[in-house]
Amino acid sequence: MQRALLASLASLLPLVRAVPWRNRQKASQISWFLGFQVVHDAHFLDSLKKNNKTWAAEDASLEKKLASLESKFGKKPNIIYILADDIGWGEMGWQGGGKHRGTPTEGLDKMAFDGIRFWSSYSEPSCTPSRIAIMTGRHPVRTGLLKVLWPGQTEGLSPEEFTIAEVLSTAGYHTAMWGKWHLGELPEHAPENQGFDYAYYGLFNGAPDNWPDSHDMQQSYPNPHRAMFYDFPGVEAYKEETGIDLSEAAFVGRRGQSRQKLGGAAGTLGPRRQEYFEKESIDQIIQYVQEKAKDERPFFIYWATYTQQLQGSAPQMHDPHVDPANAQASMMAAHSGYVDRLLATLRAEGIAENTLVVWFSDNGPMYAFFPNSGYSWLRGGKGTVLEGGVRVPAMAWWPGTIQPNQDPVDMIHLTDLYTTAARLGGALAHVPEDRVVDGVDQVPLLLLGEGHGRRSTMFHYSGSQLGAIRHKNFKIHLKESKGGLPGMDFYNVKRDPGEKYGEFYPGLFAVTPVQQTLQAHKRRMQEFPNRGEQDLTGSCPPHA
Amino acid sequence: MQRALLASLASLLPLVRAVPWRNRQKASQISWFLGFQVVHDAHFLDSLKKNNKTWAAEDASLEKKLASLESKFGKKPNIIYILADDIGWGEMGWQGGGKHRGTPTEGLDKMAFDGIRFWSSYSEPSCTPSRIAIMTGRHPVRTGLLKVLWPGQTEGLSPEEFTIAEVLSTAGYHTAMWGKWHLGELPEHAPENQGFDYAYYGLFNGAPDNWPDSHDMQQSYPNPHRAMFYDFPGVEAYKEETGIDLSEAAFVGRRGQSRQKLGGAAGTLGPRRQEYFEKESIDQIIQYVQEKAKDERPFFIYWATYTQQLQGSAPQMHDPHVDPANAQASMMAAHSGYVDRLLATLRAEGIAENTLVVWFSDNGPMYAFFPNSGYSWLRGGKGTVLEGGVRVPAMAWWPGTIQPNQDPVDMIHLTDLYTTAARLGGALAHVPEDRVVDGVDQVPLLLLGEGHGRRSTMFHYSGSQLGAIRHKNFKIHLKESKGGLPGMDFYNVKRDPGEKYGEFYPGLFAVTPVQQTLQAHKRRMQEFPNRGEQDLTGSCPPHA
Repeated sequence: MQRALLASLASLLPLVRAVPWRNRQKASQISWFLGFQVVHDAHFLDSLKKNNKTWAAEDASLEKKLASLESKFGKKPNIIYILADDIGWGEMGWQGGGKHRGTPTEGLDKMAFDGIRFWSSYSEPSCTPSRIAIMTGRHPVRTGLLKVLWPGQTEGLSPEEFTIAEVLSTAGYHTAMWGKWHLGELPEHAPENQGFDYAYYGLFNGAPDNWPDSHDMQQSYPNPHRAMFYDFPGVEAYKEETGIDLSEAAFVGRRGQSRQKLGGAAGTLGPRRQEYFEKESIDQIIQYVQEKAKDERPFFIYWATYTQQLQGSAPQMHDPHVDPANAQASMMAAHSGYVDRLLATLRAEGIAENTLVVWFSDNGPMYAFFPNSGYSWLRGGKGTVLEGGVRVPAMAWWPGTIQPNQDPVDMIHLTDLYTTAARLGGALAHVPEDRVVDGVDQVPLLLLGEGHGRRSTMFHYSGSQLGAIRHKNFKIHLKESKGGLPGMDFYNVKRDPGEKYGEFYPGLFAVTPVQQTLQAHKRRMQEFPNRGEQDLTGSCPPHA
Repeated sequence: MQRALLASLASLLPLVRAVPWRNRQKASQISWFLGFQVVHDAHFLDSLKKNNKTWAAEDASLEKKLASLESKFGKKPNIIYILADDIGWGEMGWQGGGKHRGTPTEGLDKMAFDGIRFWSSYSEPSCTPSRIAIMTGRHPVRTGLLKVLWPGQTEGLSPEEFTIAEVLSTAGYHTAMWGKWHLGELPEHAPENQGFDYAYYGLFNGAPDNWPDSHDMQQSYPNPHRAMFYDFPGVEAYKEETGIDLSEAAFVGRRGQSRQKLGGAAGTLGPRRQEYFEKESIDQIIQYVQEKAKDERPFFIYWATYTQQLQGSAPQMHDPHVDPANAQASMMAAHSGYVDRLLATLRAEGIAENTLVVWFSDNGPMYAFFPNSGYSWLRGGKGTVLEGGVRVPAMAWWPGTIQPNQDPVDMIHLTDLYTTAARLGGALAHVPEDRVVDGVDQVPLLLLGEGHGRRSTMFHYSGSQLGAIRHKNFKIHLKESKGGLPGMDFYNVKRDPGEKYGEFYPGLFAVTPVQQTLQAHKRRMQEFPNRGEQDLTGSCPPHA
């Protein structure tokens, strides 16, 4: 055992040598830390200093565990990230949502009870930003791409960003994605040019058919929600006005090849289109997993499911437990079944024990679509930095490696999935060293359980503005004030997650640490400046 | 098996004969129904007509099951009802509260996962009304006692009401209560004169020490919450002003004897008093269970725990997982441990399989005490008929009889516990026939699981006013209006439990059934008039 540990540590030596001077200096200040290759934000370095020895001991034991798994399966673990769309804190069955809201989520609940249920899991406040966060491990503000992209924009995820797919590709993984990309329309922004070997995807928000033909919509949707679309101009009118053909917004991409538009039946818009797309996606994913299970290389799947938005409620997706008039409910129920199929396939192929699956929502509910929308028990929704906008359900599943039925109090942020995957893939050395990565390695939390999370601080950006900071149990909104300090509003979001009351007096004691954290964060940002918006636009026309 | 069933049915024949004409006529309209002795409200009789055959078949099978249990243990099942104080929907660990809010509820969560977790469980909107509801199975409006009682009032639960303790006593049960009575100060209102053989109780809201000495409070409470009491006059000042000695508000009562004031150390007020009272209560309960386990008669315990209000946060109740500055959190954590002790005792005594335990909160959180208060994910709190006021956590536990790990979507109301206990105790014939009982027999839901609940309608009274009706998934507030019909505001509380949006258009289709239900409810109330307030006041001075 001792020898295996030493061998595992020794295997890291080449990485230590490859680390540039600046980071090595940082590493030398601490006795030993696996993640020192990553340029972290100031708050994490503070935590690291305080927990240096504990974390080093944990990491050594974790590396041993992972090495044993690797020797059993002959490869690094497979990683599957499922990013859900607009699902709020409370919508899982295990949260009192699910069938209790007319949206049974049995498959997702089973996953949750077989693994970890996160109650303090955080995303960015909207769609494109959360996709940047999971892809780059960075808050969107650092990437220059700040807002939700709309059809026709030429901005997108800079090719200079190094996605988790690129990190894992470099480390020898097969990489594939399905679903909603929403990180730019130009080929240079596209998944097949951002590290994915294969991608089956829609370009922007809600594509492949968030912009359905209104006539079709009105015919297909159950009364009375049909009324919602009565003045929707339709795809043809949209094309006439903007020159953009929304029916050509979904693609198959393969690394090194020009992408192909989805044509034929798949290219026809309408309310059932998205349902077909989801069905095709899970069928392809199952096939992919079955093929790659036998491969000598591990795989990484990013499944950015479309299932939880307004559209796509074909009657055949309803089951007796589903609110029959509700599109979001029926899509969610179908998705839950698809996840169940995926996990069953992993078990059937004998690779469940070597596969981490994480399910995470991209932001809170989009109430503008109510009643065909997500929902949250918390205040605020998508687009806000209130808990309802950024605190979302998440689960992790890894039979035999993650202890079942856990519900840790530890915080986790969507960016953490980047760093966590990099570590599991033995690829921390491939994370670029010229930029801050906000994601924190959460392998200790996944494998050791409650109390081993490595995050005590979070920044909640809204575009380029820092809207709120969470520091341990306190959240400080920077734009509000309820009879306290101007521009600082304190909530104990452990005791008051609904941000109903505020708790200024105890919060007052958090002012100095929070201000120090904020200043250190800003200094770090000056040291590693954010990418400018001018770096994002390519030269090709959209929809190329 | 057939013979056992027939024997079981035959045993009911004497009851049929004892049923007065009016009810027998009702019974004759339906083929067979166990609960026909109870005078139900109109909405239930409608449901009964529609489900007559199904329910009769269910009941026959249930009676068989219960008869088999009775022959195994030689007596009817023991029943323990725990009524919690001001705990909101979301505060259990299994609801994302518990340790996630700094209030670990491991014992309660274990109970919940070993039994039934109710997500659609409803109480009355405040303290005294909910205590009436569980004691009489009736909405408070019928009993004439409408509001929360304050020290010095002479009104109380009319001796003409027939409590569940009286019902079960008549059927041969030992009956005992611990905790907060809050149904009147006069001896005639007291538990020992309302069906309990033994009672260890505080008289009114928050007694034995919701009115602590402010000096003691300020010395003992952790800063900064101490500030909350800075102008509290204290017990002595209260006595001087009102003539009422709050330190004499807790009693031991025994059937047929004059009650005794708790004296000595137990009679001294102060923030730790309540802690002692709770500790004494559970110690007594454990001893009682151990004694009665061997008895030939079953027992009924009503434990109206004090633990979740403002006061009582002695430092020794804190554990490392409990928010150290929070009284409500530490009391709740202690209570959770006490419940765990109780369930362990039932198992150790070998009577768990013959004991139903139900835990129910009396109403939503009392936010006026925030941060030392309960909390809810829903809109509104204690005192309102919004979901946050009346939708509360509840659990049922009965190893070997109730399937573990259930979370049915069915509705249950606090009044249902009355009728359910009467049925389990074989005591339906002892329920008075001259009044409406709102409680619905929920034995089928407990024993057969989801879909077998017998409630589709609920009335939410606020004092004498009907504030809202729930009819299936719809809730109609009768005093508001959001751009719809005057005095009718529709919410689909299945889809929108936070009552955030309202859903008028689909709700419109519920107008007629809801109005019909309302009219039938009013007709039934004319047929069986409510008790008047004049019937409640006795002639003795308070604190006798």
